[in-house]
Amino acid sequence: MTDENVQVRLASRPVGRPTADNFAFASEPLPSPRDGQVLLRTRYLSLDPYMRGRMSDAPSYAPPVEVGGVMVGGTIGEVVESRSPGLKPGDLVLAYSGWQKYGVARAEHVRKLDPDSGVPVTTALGVLGMPGLTAYAGLTQIGQPKAGETVVVAAASGPVGAAVGQLARILGARAVGIAGGPRKADHVRSLGFDAALDHRSPTFGDDLAAATPDGIDVYFENVGGHVWDAVLPRLNRFGRVPLCGLVAAYNMTSPPAGPDRSPLLLRSILTKSLTVRGFIVSDFAALEPEFLRQAVPWAREGRLRCREDIVDGLENAPEAFAGMLEGKNFGKLIVRL
Amino acid sequence: MTDENVQVRLASRPVGRPTADNFAFASEPLPSPRDGQVLLRTRYLSLDPYMRGRMSDAPSYAPPVEVGGVMVGGTIGEVVESRSPGLKPGDLVLAYSGWQKYGVARAEHVRKLDPDSGVPVTTALGVLGMPGLTAYAGLTQIGQPKAGETVVVAAASGPVGAAVGQLARILGARAVGIAGGPRKADHVRSLGFDAALDHRSPTFGDDLAAATPDGIDVYFENVGGHVWDAVLPRLNRFGRVPLCGLVAAYNMTSPPAGPDRSPLLLRSILTKSLTVRGFIVSDFAALEPEFLRQAVPWAREGRLRCREDIVDGLENAPEAFAGMLEGKNFGKLIVRL
Repeated sequence: MTDENVQVRLASRPVGRPTADNFAFASEPLPSPRDGQVLLRTRYLSLDPYMRGRMSDAPSYAPPVEVGGVMVGGTIGEVVESRSPGLKPGDLVLAYSGWQKYGVARAEHVRKLDPDSGVPVTTALGVLGMPGLTAYAGLTQIGQPKAGETVVVAAASGPVGAAVGQLARILGARAVGIAGGPRKADHVRSLGFDAALDHRSPTFGDDLAAATPDGIDVYFENVGGHVWDAVLPRLNRFGRVPLCGLVAAYNMTSPPAGPDRSPLLLRSILTKSLTVRGFIVSDFAALEPEFLRQAVPWAREGRLRCREDIVDGLENAPEAFAGMLEGKNFGKLIVRL
Repeated sequence: MTDENVQVRLASRPVGRPTADNFAFASEPLPSPRDGQVLLRTRYLSLDPYMRGRMSDAPSYAPPVEVGGVMVGGTIGEVVESRSPGLKPGDLVLAYSGWQKYGVARAEHVRKLDPDSGVPVTTALGVLGMPGLTAYAGLTQIGQPKAGETVVVAAASGPVGAAVGQLARILGARAVGIAGGPRKADHVRSLGFDAALDHRSPTFGDDLAAATPDGIDVYFENVGGHVWDAVLPRLNRFGRVPLCGLVAAYNMTSPPAGPDRSPLLLRSILTKSLTVRGFIVSDFAALEPEFLRQAVPWAREGRLRCREDIVDGLENAPEAFAGMLEGKNFGKLIVRL
């Protein structure tokens, strides 16, 4: 094997929107797997908003990527060399080998994928992967919509949002999706949401009111910003807000201008007996088997799906990633190598 | 009976701190109880921060007092005339007859008090009443401190805060109380809290860090403002914040100056997997029997107690109430008639 590994490393910590300067491409010899490990050739790299947090050294739930370190990320890799009896060359696995052409992983840290399961393997990065489990965990453990209640989710054409709405409907709730632009809203409607809104429309506030005549019982929060501001007054008493992301704030370099609306936010939580609960998917890792048992059939039946936005070439990952933080992707963003 | 009723009515809605102009004293003939009702002579009137919300017509969990209506409030009344077989003149009852000298109530809406129970009847307005149940419900249903965890509460010399700390210790947790001024802090320490801090001290931030070396697992929020700002960075992952009041904000006439810190608040909730849950005591009314079964013995043993701040005369209620919103009371504020 004469190929070289290509890595995308964190060159410097971004201030605001990540730029090309924050990433460095480097080549190095292929790593060799040890006993119990496999060498993987990356077929697909998942790009997800949480990675923005890992580029920063602000306190967070996970340690940051070190400057000079390989950018982290979920991947689908093909086994090219195996020193584990359970895996052989040619097998496809879900791994976490990051932004690089090759990676080495312990066999027990990867999950073998079945290319003949009736759903594309890339769903393992989307509705059947971390984003799908995020939606499932937040909805079943925190949102807990009852039949007939109204669930609202932003970034509804993305993998978490798309899964939230479809799962809400499977649970018997009404699903209202919010997306950026009429094309995305149309797509959200095609996923079976009861209503889909464009948050960039000048009539967004009125549209949200019309789409939620009985108020909002569950707001699955993954964006923040002006969508949250519009949702807050429409939350019903005892509303639940699973909070798993704040994409709108990830590139913020300073708090927005005043007034300070945090007392207003706390007042709403108080007077409406709201529950606002932050989580990350790893808080609910134990739910994965239960999730997959149900979600794989749902995906096969087309009840749980998400558009994919596939970008070719690792060299395009940085720009695609930065664009995603501004909502430029349309569906689950994946880099194909 | 030749006495007249005296009422304190809401004359106008306050803007900011309530003033004498917002209240009107009126006399009127004694009401007559109908079948199933009792006529009560108010002995004690409870003054509580939630009443500020009822004076305002901003949307809230309870409808406001109408302008011209009698101010609402919990009371201890003596039965002077009974048309219910279960109650007789001279009985003391816990009622909700408001800011007036006499009131009429249905017998099933009052609770007969035992003057020989071993605790003062006024505890029915404090640690054994609505404030005590608020503390118990917020702590056991939302805060859920485990043994050895750290519970922090503000307004710790008030009835809710005092009960939170003492109940936290009964549950095996560490209790840190915050109060306004060294005298109140000393008193909080005398209630058995593990530590007590003066939030007006210039070293408050450092004091809080020193008193919570392992961070904060439960912050029982009833005040808001700068105490909350100091607590937020010290909350541990999976921290819980039962939120039952925001006294510091009740007299606010406009949001505080910027920057807007609500994204920072949401970010903390996200990155620490916090739960912030608002509630009012009536959300947990069903817990009252369980609470009283345990709390009455605790109160009798001196493990659950609160200083009382007793003001004589209904005519002094408005000023005492306004002072309480600024922290001028020292303990459970009660008007004796």
